[in-house]
Amino acid sequence: MAIDSVVIKIFSLTFFSFFVAMAWTPLLTHFLYKYKLGKQIRDSVKSPVFTAMHQKKSGTPTMGGLLIWVTVLILSVAIYYLSVWFNSYFTFLNFLTRPQTLLPLGCLVAAALVGLVDDYLNVRKIGPCGGGLSVKHRLLVYTAIALVAAFWFYFRLEWDLIRIPLVGNFNIGWWFIPFVIFVIVATAFSVNEIDGLDGLAGGTLLIAYISFGAIAFAQGRFDLAAFCGVIVGALLAFLWFNITPARFFMGDTGAMSLGVTLAVIAILTNSVLLLPIIGFLFVIESLSVIIQVASKKLRGGKKVFFSAPIHHHFEAIGWPEAKVVMRFWVVAGVMAIIGLVIFLVDTGAWNR
Amino acid sequence: MAIDSVVIKIFSLTFFSFFVAMAWTPLLTHFLYKYKLGKQIRDSVKSPVFTAMHQKKSGTPTMGGLLIWVTVLILSVAIYYLSVWFNSYFTFLNFLTRPQTLLPLGCLVAAALVGLVDDYLNVRKIGPCGGGLSVKHRLLVYTAIALVAAFWFYFRLEWDLIRIPLVGNFNIGWWFIPFVIFVIVATAFSVNEIDGLDGLAGGTLLIAYISFGAIAFAQGRFDLAAFCGVIVGALLAFLWFNITPARFFMGDTGAMSLGVTLAVIAILTNSVLLLPIIGFLFVIESLSVIIQVASKKLRGGKKVFFSAPIHHHFEAIGWPEAKVVMRFWVVAGVMAIIGLVIFLVDTGAWNR
Repeated sequence: MAIDSVVIKIFSLTFFSFFVAMAWTPLLTHFLYKYKLGKQIRDSVKSPVFTAMHQKKSGTPTMGGLLIWVTVLILSVAIYYLSVWFNSYFTFLNFLTRPQTLLPLGCLVAAALVGLVDDYLNVRKIGPCGGGLSVKHRLLVYTAIALVAAFWFYFRLEWDLIRIPLVGNFNIGWWFIPFVIFVIVATAFSVNEIDGLDGLAGGTLLIAYISFGAIAFAQGRFDLAAFCGVIVGALLAFLWFNITPARFFMGDTGAMSLGVTLAVIAILTNSVLLLPIIGFLFVIESLSVIIQVASKKLRGGKKVFFSAPIHHHFEAIGWPEAKVVMRFWVVAGVMAIIGLVIFLVDTGAWNR
Repeated sequence: MAIDSVVIKIFSLTFFSFFVAMAWTPLLTHFLYKYKLGKQIRDSVKSPVFTAMHQKKSGTPTMGGLLIWVTVLILSVAIYYLSVWFNSYFTFLNFLTRPQTLLPLGCLVAAALVGLVDDYLNVRKIGPCGGGLSVKHRLLVYTAIALVAAFWFYFRLEWDLIRIPLVGNFNIGWWFIPFVIFVIVATAFSVNEIDGLDGLAGGTLLIAYISFGAIAFAQGRFDLAAFCGVIVGALLAFLWFNITPARFFMGDTGAMSLGVTLAVIAILTNSVLLLPIIGFLFVIESLSVIIQVASKKLRGGKKVFFSAPIHHHFEAIGWPEAKVVMRFWVVAGVMAIIGLVIFLVDTGAWNR
């Protein structure tokens, strides 16, 4: 297929996904508000700073992530079956192929369903710690999903390769399995941490998916690039309504699923070490939580940040919410460009 | 020079420019506040909606654009002379060359100086309409700058070429001169229109300069790409402090100079028709003003928008400022990607 057609394919899918997501947003909003699927702002003595700052947001519905993964799922499957049944224009548009996109789509949906259950339990206050699954259970479930993905990589795709940019490829044998599990689970939980301010997770994920879409494209993995495009389109629609006075939040069903999928795509494009660069903020968010928890435990309750994850720290020192989000977007954009340039220099894209 | 070195050069310059700009920001802030170089929010019966919304911003200093062009000027000239005198590492870093960067730097500084005078007159309320140059005088001065640039293109670089992406190149003879003048003046005034909300001009200009930097790089115009990088670095520092509770505004000295320079770079990279795509919002902002003014004149005072330029319209219908800015950033990012993809398909970068 000529490069022009591929570009047309990917952009058509991206726009189509955007419009489909936009089209059913009112339906989702109506549904979420009707059944009062609103975020419960934890009212705890454990995190007084956080509670004080976020009480006003109580009632904004969560589970907005449905907009993203349901759009992606329906579009992928619909186009696939249309291409099987009618086999003409739709074959051109189909991007659901086993080596490239079946795994990330499966991971997206699996993680999204778990997240959905978790969100629902949280909203209805069902569960051990006031609502939702316990951290231990969540870790277990997402590790299970990551394990399936790791097995797929190792046994089905026969991959055990890590590329260090500008250095080279390294086969690490069966160590690849725990490595993949770690990357997927860590990314999912990190993305979940950043999902705390209006437009923050949406914007940073958008930048990350555009970057990995570009990487997949540059590698000739056009179906994967199209898959990223479809996510970008739906994410764009989500972000539009998630920007500052947010109509809904992403919730676990969005953050965990997009986190897992992002990690899978990074591994599929053999650029997993670019993930901490392009997803720099996800790393920082996770680190801030780890440091805070460790400090509280080891230093007898002493905190490092006023509130963790770190975006709440900046709020606590007086930055308005929009200032935190916009500065984080700028940082995310800069880091994504650095990541992409490292990728391009590494592949020697211009050294013809 | 190997591609790796070029990338290192451009990124070093970008970061260096960012740090230099960051370093003297406190000095500039101190100076602007000390001499009360604050924005006068026009208190007029002509635009009551605008006045009502923006009274609280009276007193925030303008002329923040100094941060950008002064940093760029000092860096360019300093590195040039260091490379002439010491001729070693600095030759590697120098990017001030006649065919690529002398013209845009000259235009940047010329337009910035005019803008500075205008800003000063505005702040001190010296001038015919309550402060600053009249529109007629501004048009005249910027047209003069554009004329010099047009002559440089036509007579010195011997250019009379317009490229229509995906179609081809067209020689338009001496029509190139008025065309260049129109593009430069229109871009300058459009960028100036968008400079009305915290972070709006900064963010959209950042995206535009990154895009044209990438275009220049892909064309092998490395000095021009480095020049864009230096602007990007300084702009990034400016934006950091211009984000929502803005410490200062860009002012004419920033907006007009960056507008003129953006147009010159678009012409230098022979991608002037990508400018209305990558700078989509600049076009929209200008159009909204033109439509509003025309409607008021032709329809006996009837308005199309609650307030023009269009970002004030969105504020008037109830969007918080940050919502307008963040949504505009998202639109700017999407349009920049579309512009870059058109550029890449057009040059057939992947058709090896």
